[in-house]
Amino acid sequence: MRAVDEKLHSRVTQFYARQMQALDAGRFEEYAGTFTEDGVFQHTPGTEPARTREGILAELHEFNKKYVDDPVQRRHYFSQLLLEPQDDGTLRATVYALIVRTRPGGRPEVWPSCVVHDVIVADDETVLLKSRHVSYD
Amino acid sequence: MRAVDEKLHSRVTQFYARQMQALDAGRFEEYAGTFTEDGVFQHTPGTEPARTREGILAELHEFNKKYVDDPVQRRHYFSQLLLEPQDDGTLRATVYALIVRTRPGGRPEVWPSCVVHDVIVADDETVLLKSRHVSYD
Amino acid sequence: MRAVDEKLHSRVTQFYARQMQALDAGRFEEYAGTFTEDGVFQHTPGTEPARTREGILAELHEFNKKYVDDPVQRRHYFSQLLLEPQDDGTLRATVYALIVRTRPGGRPEVWPSCVVHDVIVADDETVLLKSRHVSYD
Repeated sequence: MRAVDEKLHSRVTQFYARQMQALDAGRFEEYAGTFTEDGVFQHTPGTEPARTREGILAELHEFNKKYVDDPVQRRHYFSQLLLEPQDDGTLRATVYALIVRTRPGGRPEVWPSCVVHDVIVADDETVLLKSRHVSYD
Repeated sequence: MRAVDEKLHSRVTQFYARQMQALDAGRFEEYAGTFTEDGVFQHTPGTEPARTREGILAELHEFNKKYVDDPVQRRHYFSQLLLEPQDDGTLRATVYALIVRTRPGGRPEVWPSCVVHDVIVADDETVLLKSRHVSYD
Repeated sequence: MRAVDEKLHSRVTQFYARQMQALDAGRFEEYAGTFTEDGVFQHTPGTEPARTREGILAELHEFNKKYVDDPVQRRHYFSQLLLEPQDDGTLRATVYALIVRTRPGGRPEVWPSCVVHDVIVADDETVLLKSRHVSYD
């Protein structure tokens, strides 16, 4: 069983908290900046993934057009983060994500339940995503 | 990006687990004791916050009167803990909280989804909350 | 307040991620292997617990017969992991578990909310469960 040490585990966990709070707050530029320059982001299986920070940013703006007249607050609850070092020096992360949507005055809707598959590059200074693919239950 | 080291990150994470399990189990004195003596706790925006451990304890008893005839089990699921060191030596914590309520024989109700905003004071011995403000989606 | 150091906290957290992803993926042998040889697993209060890895594996196969014609994907979302060292050298873990079930084309059902009570034996090499008892809200 290959695990990672507590330092890297903590850094990645904090990276996700910062990243997903940025996404849920609509800070798309900050979210795009959590990818490598040539990063790949596929949020919906079967669609063409977005590539590069610029492409990811454009995709996020495009995706969120549908919410322009819909003031929904989404939150991504992560759990069960599994980190597996790869032979090429990257880190594979597999983490559950439960999405909770609340509209003004309403109760939360809980859907979907996803699994997030990331490839992480980390050095002593930074943690970045090389790729993210999301699968849906 | 300012993060915290793995030791403090782990200590705060464990502090929350203990604190929220105490609250959900109705151990209000233990919960009040997780604040500093002059701690501030505002669980509902727009209301006057409770102040001091004694005041927080009184508020918890007051708040729970409404559940005297309602045997609901609440659980606070936390996720995405973000910790940011402040210039004054405190630590700002921002964490998602999904509240799950179960009544005997019933299925869970999931509401609300909150964001918990804490100011933490930590030294080598203890972790305590200086303040907690909860915002609701 | 007895806590555990960041190294053990991280190892146990990663152990749970791997263990529960294995269970949710139907890798029952891997799940059974996360217990000690004489491990005890009681997933439903009031029933006789399964004993030994072999017994746990048999119990999992038995339990999942009811899902043979029901393609439900279950996910166990854990939160608020509390770890308490015991005098006998074991570690008591108490952790919330929210179970999310999704059927093809459907929205997730969120139930039940559980509390998982584990006794862990950990040395420098391995983390294993000596026992697991699940209580339901």
